[in-house]
Amino acid sequence: MSVIIAIDIGGTQLRVATFSGDSIIPVNVRRTSTRSKEGNVFERLTAALDSIWPAEPVDAICAAIPGPIDPARGVILSAPNIPGWVNLPFADLLAKKYRVPVFLENDANLAAVGEWRYGAGRGHNDLLYLTISTGIGGGIICGGRLLTGAHGLAAELGHLIVLPGGPVCSCGQRGHLEAIASGTAIARYVSEQIAAGRTSSLASDPRITARDVAAAARRGDQLAIEAFANAGKYLGQGVVDFLHIFNPSILIFGGGVSQSGDLLFGPMKQAIEGLVMDKQYLEDLAITTAQLGDDAGLLGALAQARIKLGTG
Amino acid sequence: MSVIIAIDIGGTQLRVATFSGDSIIPVNVRRTSTRSKEGNVFERLTAALDSIWPAEPVDAICAAIPGPIDPARGVILSAPNIPGWVNLPFADLLAKKYRVPVFLENDANLAAVGEWRYGAGRGHNDLLYLTISTGIGGGIICGGRLLTGAHGLAAELGHLIVLPGGPVCSCGQRGHLEAIASGTAIARYVSEQIAAGRTSSLASDPRITARDVAAAARRGDQLAIEAFANAGKYLGQGVVDFLHIFNPSILIFGGGVSQSGDLLFGPMKQAIEGLVMDKQYLEDLAITTAQLGDDAGLLGALAQARIKLGTG
Repeated sequence: MSVIIAIDIGGTQLRVATFSGDSIIPVNVRRTSTRSKEGNVFERLTAALDSIWPAEPVDAICAAIPGPIDPARGVILSAPNIPGWVNLPFADLLAKKYRVPVFLENDANLAAVGEWRYGAGRGHNDLLYLTISTGIGGGIICGGRLLTGAHGLAAELGHLIVLPGGPVCSCGQRGHLEAIASGTAIARYVSEQIAAGRTSSLASDPRITARDVAAAARRGDQLAIEAFANAGKYLGQGVVDFLHIFNPSILIFGGGVSQSGDLLFGPMKQAIEGLVMDKQYLEDLAITTAQLGDDAGLLGALAQARIKLGTG
Repeated sequence: MSVIIAIDIGGTQLRVATFSGDSIIPVNVRRTSTRSKEGNVFERLTAALDSIWPAEPVDAICAAIPGPIDPARGVILSAPNIPGWVNLPFADLLAKKYRVPVFLENDANLAAVGEWRYGAGRGHNDLLYLTISTGIGGGIICGGRLLTGAHGLAAELGHLIVLPGGPVCSCGQRGHLEAIASGTAIARYVSEQIAAGRTSSLASDPRITARDVAAAARRGDQLAIEAFANAGKYLGQGVVDFLHIFNPSILIFGGGVSQSGDLLFGPMKQAIEGLVMDKQYLEDLAITTAQLGDDAGLLGALAQARIKLGTG
């Protein structure tokens, strides 16, 4: 009976879980906070692993990492939310301690793998996953395999240039999809318009979030509706680029902002219809929201371990 | 000894060639014109095949097609330069006549495969190929496999949106890479600027080509230099998107306009340096021109047949 340990390291919480056979229900699961004053993150991670380590032999560990990694060397290049995790030889450290194979992959890529194997993307071989929350991340399955690139840096779909010279992105460059269509960008759009003198029911909020903007839009606030329409338009433009590049059979949208429904996806679909160069790209194309929610990273790590072991 | 027949159907000429063993030098080759009044293209193709058909058993036929295809069904969806080739069941027609497996793929994809196996891309597993001539085509090798998408329509890299609302593309949409950085677009840029009153040594030419613009630029013509700089800037922007999406280890540029050298690639490299979000994408990244020239399609068809048969 195959035993896998999956790890999902998020910005605020860290989860470890043991899975057995071909089940996706954990035998055991433990969560701890990523940020804490008690010891460092790596110590809290190994303490959590120790606490759930099973009696049976473990076949592999696979971890979802919130930042760029080098999958070949098993190194975390950086993890923006975890100070000190720079060029961390994560796989080696865990492999030395637990003496099992250790795989790692960035969280958006593993969320794509999770949705592909256990979620909204089952049965598809060419899948595009976008997670829209404070930022925009992506993962691609093409021809039944995860796209990683030569050094594990592929599928940075949030950094597609959709408006040359446009708003500044979290990465420092301009006009990226993330800088226009993420939750942060939607909230910023409203704040900037209010600062420029536009009226809105949100004008009195000192710190506007995309969730506030969605609520205001549902109440009929014109600026809030416009903010989602603008984000959706550029999201649609980016999606059209991805259709022409990957010709997927399914688009899956995860992340909190994807809960905004037609506020975002109405304008997105309109942009897609208007900009796609051939209707064939839309034939048999499924467009759907993610099914695994916060479990996408953990189940993606599980799926990836089974793929790497040749059992999934 | 494996015997493969490769077919390359170009806009003006059509070539068929027999290859034996693991050689890339044809045993026999025949060319005919694609456009002619003597019979239709398919009849000229089969006549050429008949004339070189070997005494030994043929293992497979593979054809490079100048237009979108459905690789699963072996159907040519359309071939812009060949009237009447719409939804043509090409693989079935040839398989019925010759009783051998028939594969087909679009010519830019097969040029990528050819460069990967026998040309500038040998040894790479993540390769991006762009051909810049009257249009811009692309092919992607990711993780050691050709990217085709769910219905064979992937890698339309020339149709990346680099300037929303920009110049009209051959496909009818606006602001695509092809509409700004192809040979046609470079020549059009000069013509439009001259029509708007700019001076240039090309002002007296009734019909300007990208080759004329390159020659004028080398003589110091400022408008011609500017035309290549503008194309190179947007080409660089598109390449940066492709780096963030695919993280390739090599970029290969084919097509006539790629012969323009630093006129195009100087501004392109400057744009890449300025727009890439992390220098890691440029580490160990080879940027080179194609090695196979006009043979890329034919040798790509050969390579693809060997891959499909598991012998290459």
